[in-house]
Amino acid sequence: MRELLVIGVGAGDPDQVTVQAIKAMNRAEVFFVIGKGEQKQDLVDLRTGILDEHVRGDHRIVDIVDPPRDRTPSDYEGVVDDWHDRRARVFEEAFSAVDGVGAILVWGDPSLYDSTLRIVERVLGRGVVDFEYTVIPGVTSVSSLAAQHRIVLNRIGEPVLTTTGRRLRGEGLPDGVRDAVVMLDAENGFTTLSGDWDIWWGAYLGTPDETLISGDLRTVEDEIVRTRADLRERKGWIMDTYLIRRR
Amino acid sequence: MRELLVIGVGAGDPDQVTVQAIKAMNRAEVFFVIGKGEQKQDLVDLRTGILDEHVRGDHRIVDIVDPPRDRTPSDYEGVVDDWHDRRARVFEEAFSAVDGVGAILVWGDPSLYDSTLRIVERVLGRGVVDFEYTVIPGVTSVSSLAAQHRIVLNRIGEPVLTTTGRRLRGEGLPDGVRDAVVMLDAENGFTTLSGDWDIWWGAYLGTPDETLISGDLRTVEDEIVRTRADLRERKGWIMDTYLIRRR
Repeated sequence: MRELLVIGVGAGDPDQVTVQAIKAMNRAEVFFVIGKGEQKQDLVDLRTGILDEHVRGDHRIVDIVDPPRDRTPSDYEGVVDDWHDRRARVFEEAFSAVDGVGAILVWGDPSLYDSTLRIVERVLGRGVVDFEYTVIPGVTSVSSLAAQHRIVLNRIGEPVLTTTGRRLRGEGLPDGVRDAVVMLDAENGFTTLSGDWDIWWGAYLGTPDETLISGDLRTVEDEIVRTRADLRERKGWIMDTYLIRRR
Repeated sequence: MRELLVIGVGAGDPDQVTVQAIKAMNRAEVFFVIGKGEQKQDLVDLRTGILDEHVRGDHRIVDIVDPPRDRTPSDYEGVVDDWHDRRARVFEEAFSAVDGVGAILVWGDPSLYDSTLRIVERVLGRGVVDFEYTVIPGVTSVSSLAAQHRIVLNRIGEPVLTTTGRRLRGEGLPDGVRDAVVMLDAENGFTTLSGDWDIWWGAYLGTPDETLISGDLRTVEDEIVRTRADLRERKGWIMDTYLIRRR
């Protein structure tokens, strides 16, 4: 493989793809698609929809079967590290079978809670295959969330923290942080907050299943918990994010 | 005016505009362009370039002359608040002279350190004009920065703070924050950090003048300070952002 393009394609809506991303996709001969198991077939379908909509001419899809990952590790960083290493070897094998330009499509933007760039660096670090690579930024699910709720993430002149559900549940927020975007929250971390908060929540942003709830946290938290559980059961998976703001 | 579209158009490169933004731009009959004074003529030119590249058919440009703002206030929030109110009245006047669909193009994404949505809400709150409005998310300068440096903003499972140069200089970072994106930093706030840090800095992201510097903070900080000063003098303005990461 001569060159790898890591392309942010937005939160799910094929229209949320940039012109830069479309041009990059049309340079690629091979798209690596990382299999997520049957329950996430919707995501594979969304990705196929983006390619069908925007890519002209021949291209090949190469499936990369993701190695399994322990989802409830006690040693979180160690387990993630080991998983990335196993992924790197799987990616290396796929890359080495390709000539020309390859591409990986990343939901949202490759710079936010996405492991693709780390895997690419690991593959290069192993020294077995060598290639140029370029990153194309995309619209994040966070920007999509804010746009759908028509909100600004930060208060005037104030900071905003982007964090994970695991951190929120484990350590809470750092002192002085009154505005936070929470990603990768599988266990309703917002229910652990004390005090007066507003929340702007969204699931499946940019897709036909998009669902939004906002309001005073204490008033809407049960509705969010219930809606998340219902949606997750109905679709088999959920992707959601939210902004919390202390009053 | 029947409808207002607030459209994120990315960091400056016309190719960083999404298909959704292009469709929205082509629905607009009037584009409100906020004048920033002669020194930022480059930004007006970049915006014109985006319209020329992507908009087919007739459209009208309406200039909105930004009221002046005290750049070194002692009462920061109060002064910004007053400025937003004066802006709201200027926008209201411009909106009320338009029929059909209007649009405002926002650099990056409207949800991050941009005042457009607050002004729109203020205009609506005054009750003199009424209209629907829609927000189209864009690629942030932060995503552009990360893409050009090919970095992930967060460490695995860790949070990242987005803050301003003013906050960084005034209060430093909250305890426990080891990764931060700094925006709107007119005075080299990174020089006030103590300890071991890496920095990834970028100016005029997505434009022909894009400039990138990265490395150990103590090693590259003088170069960044000098480069910022040179560029600002040469072009009359600078827009830059950076990620700092504690070792």
